[in-house]
Amino acid sequence: MFTRPRGTRDFLPEEMKRRRWAELAMREALESFGFEEIMTPTFEHAELFTERSGEDIVEQLYVFEDKGGRRLALRPELTAPTMRLFSESLSRRPQPVRIYYFENCFRYERPQKGRFREFWQMGAETIGRRTPLRTLDTIMAAYTAIRATGLENLPLKVNNITLIRRLLGLLKVDSETEGEMLRALDRGDTEAFENALSTADPRAAALYRDFVTSPTEKALSSILEQQGVEGGIREELLRMYGNLQRMVETLRALGAQSASISPGVVRGLDYYDGVVFEIEDPRLGAEKQICGGGEYVFKFLGKEPLEGVGFAIGFDRLLLSLTERGIEGTSEREKVLLTVLDEGIEAYALEASLRIREAEVSVEVLEVKGGLRKALTTALKRGYGKVVVIGRREAERRVVLIRDLKGRSQEILTLSELKEVFTAPSRR
Amino acid sequence: MFTRPRGTRDFLPEEMKRRRWAELAMREALESFGFEEIMTPTFEHAELFTERSGEDIVEQLYVFEDKGGRRLALRPELTAPTMRLFSESLSRRPQPVRIYYFENCFRYERPQKGRFREFWQMGAETIGRRTPLRTLDTIMAAYTAIRATGLENLPLKVNNITLIRRLLGLLKVDSETEGEMLRALDRGDTEAFENALSTADPRAAALYRDFVTSPTEKALSSILEQQGVEGGIREELLRMYGNLQRMVETLRALGAQSASISPGVVRGLDYYDGVVFEIEDPRLGAEKQICGGGEYVFKFLGKEPLEGVGFAIGFDRLLLSLTERGIEGTSEREKVLLTVLDEGIEAYALEASLRIREAEVSVEVLEVKGGLRKALTTALKRGYGKVVVIGRREAERRVVLIRDLKGRSQEILTLSELKEVFTAPSRR
Repeated sequence: MFTRPRGTRDFLPEEMKRRRWAELAMREALESFGFEEIMTPTFEHAELFTERSGEDIVEQLYVFEDKGGRRLALRPELTAPTMRLFSESLSRRPQPVRIYYFENCFRYERPQKGRFREFWQMGAETIGRRTPLRTLDTIMAAYTAIRATGLENLPLKVNNITLIRRLLGLLKVDSETEGEMLRALDRGDTEAFENALSTADPRAAALYRDFVTSPTEKALSSILEQQGVEGGIREELLRMYGNLQRMVETLRALGAQSASISPGVVRGLDYYDGVVFEIEDPRLGAEKQICGGGEYVFKFLGKEPLEGVGFAIGFDRLLLSLTERGIEGTSEREKVLLTVLDEGIEAYALEASLRIREAEVSVEVLEVKGGLRKALTTALKRGYGKVVVIGRREAERRVVLIRDLKGRSQEILTLSELKEVFTAPSRR
Repeated sequence: MFTRPRGTRDFLPEEMKRRRWAELAMREALESFGFEEIMTPTFEHAELFTERSGEDIVEQLYVFEDKGGRRLALRPELTAPTMRLFSESLSRRPQPVRIYYFENCFRYERPQKGRFREFWQMGAETIGRRTPLRTLDTIMAAYTAIRATGLENLPLKVNNITLIRRLLGLLKVDSETEGEMLRALDRGDTEAFENALSTADPRAAALYRDFVTSPTEKALSSILEQQGVEGGIREELLRMYGNLQRMVETLRALGAQSASISPGVVRGLDYYDGVVFEIEDPRLGAEKQICGGGEYVFKFLGKEPLEGVGFAIGFDRLLLSLTERGIEGTSEREKVLLTVLDEGIEAYALEASLRIREAEVSVEVLEVKGGLRKALTTALKRGYGKVVVIGRREAERRVVLIRDLKGRSQEILTLSELKEVFTAPSRR
């Protein structure tokens, strides 16, 4: 009864430090790209999510009614809420509007590695007319945010979902087969993709497989030739591919050397309709995708469609990736233990602690019975490198004893000397 | 349908900046006191909250069942979850354990000023045996965190809930009348307090009123005398009051000059059993309480009771208080608009943007048609003080034009000069 609910997590101090460190690094990266933070409520009207994805998604939603009989849902993702916020409150601002969020989401699914019932996403949207510049800048923001945590050179896979849909449209397959092929592409299962295609159009199967496994303009041309595509349509599809190639070249020139065209990036969501991208960590196995995004047109029932480009980073997977690579995060502020050996000197001891805290040092105050020796062993046991000791004698003389547990040196200091010791540049 | 649920809030960029600024200031204060952050799930087993507060609280809870038939609730507060986490995962660590949280909570109540269905709390707990030193240090942490946001000298009211309960226990009143008196004290309604008391014990009413309105050792002695309390019990109650006085004196000496004894601070929660305190902003009217806390013994059914001292700060009220006092928060990082005048120079423009971002400057990249003049008006309209302009000419020469919109000066710079301009110490 007094345990945490199944599939949820508690985060202890050590883990929270890592999480806040990674969060801060990514926030600063996104803000350096001009994204500004917004925040939406933890629950929304359930229709916001079911309208787009159908009632099927309800199976994975935490749905409940409030006392007014409204059907609410804990958010399973943040794109729809962000679009809702934009449409309610930001649509009159000069476009593009660049916003980001860092929030938790909820999905009822079987707990397994890298999938949790409560999980965190950091995402950003550039809302407004799409241009190659805006798309490039947004992809670079995602790449830079991830790199800021120390994850260098993760594969950045770029595709044009419209090009793929158009190519599959050339085949005379029913929508079920097309869906099957897209799903096979999505999970990187080239064999299943080719099999689905073989039944429908055996002659094209090998050519399509070649293109999706190693995309080149030549491989694309072969498909177009085999399918008898000529004239304007041929030119249009080749131009789409050329643009994609130029985009990848630019991304590489800007420092994302791992960028490549990958026709397997097809994104499961229906609002993407142009350039799409993913950043993944191959070491994470089945749950390797850390970031996904792209160009979209987001439609609300009865409202103006919203055009833009954005992405979401799976924060929990990113942390798994950091763990996998042994990236620890930078060290935090200096910490010291202040031990109080006698009773009746609380006021003086706390005065000393406030002086040290003014120097942006973290001070834990602790009563220790058993004198200096006990104070030192307590500090060592708790992992401190430095301990300030105050007993009745020190309080009377308004000094403190400070001991460096690594260097084993110790000094007697007045309160003002104490503050200086901690703010001295050499110690910072 | 596509609006936010009633009683919830969206936070737009301007508001989020204030919130993050205040959050950071308070976090740093708490961390300087040696508190370390933890995080619990957004929902818990409903019993965690109903066991303590009875099924009545269900009326205010967002309760739902998951697919396994478990009865879950969005957390209405964070003390119980924090105690649960401690008891599951931290109880073997050397005590005291000092932890803090900053999270959202949920209560179904009629939306009104200062009360929201989703609201944020920052709180801290020093778990372990209580001592005056630990209590003083924890109260100072709360006071320092609030002061770090610029809220100086807010009233800090301190009381001993056991002293009050013992004093009320001297009267021969039923528990209903006692409850009524405590509630009257809690809302600062001295008249209702005196009235309830008059019916039960008319002779004592005036003395009790005197003590709760202006507490002194003399006023306490008068009550004890009138009630015929002598010997050990008299000494014990006077000692309790003396300790409280010394605590308030120490708090004042440590910089919380607004500290005072206030017998009206009785805290509505049953686990407090010693020193309790509140920090309030009188300007906020009925919802003036910003922080509340105290010494407690927290009992889980069938587990060892947890002893400690802690507090919670109502983050949304604190922000109302900042607004009320016109406190804006410090400025953020430097921002510049980078305008791109021509097509085909995306790669160069983005390269320049990355150079500037390396200097920890926030850069928004924007395509502007209509030349330099349009670039400048766009920057002004969007509130920028500085604009970088890149057209085909600049791209060919690998330079940029930078214009200070306040000083109206402009310069042509190479990319490396550009980065230097932004990192020059004089600009930071």
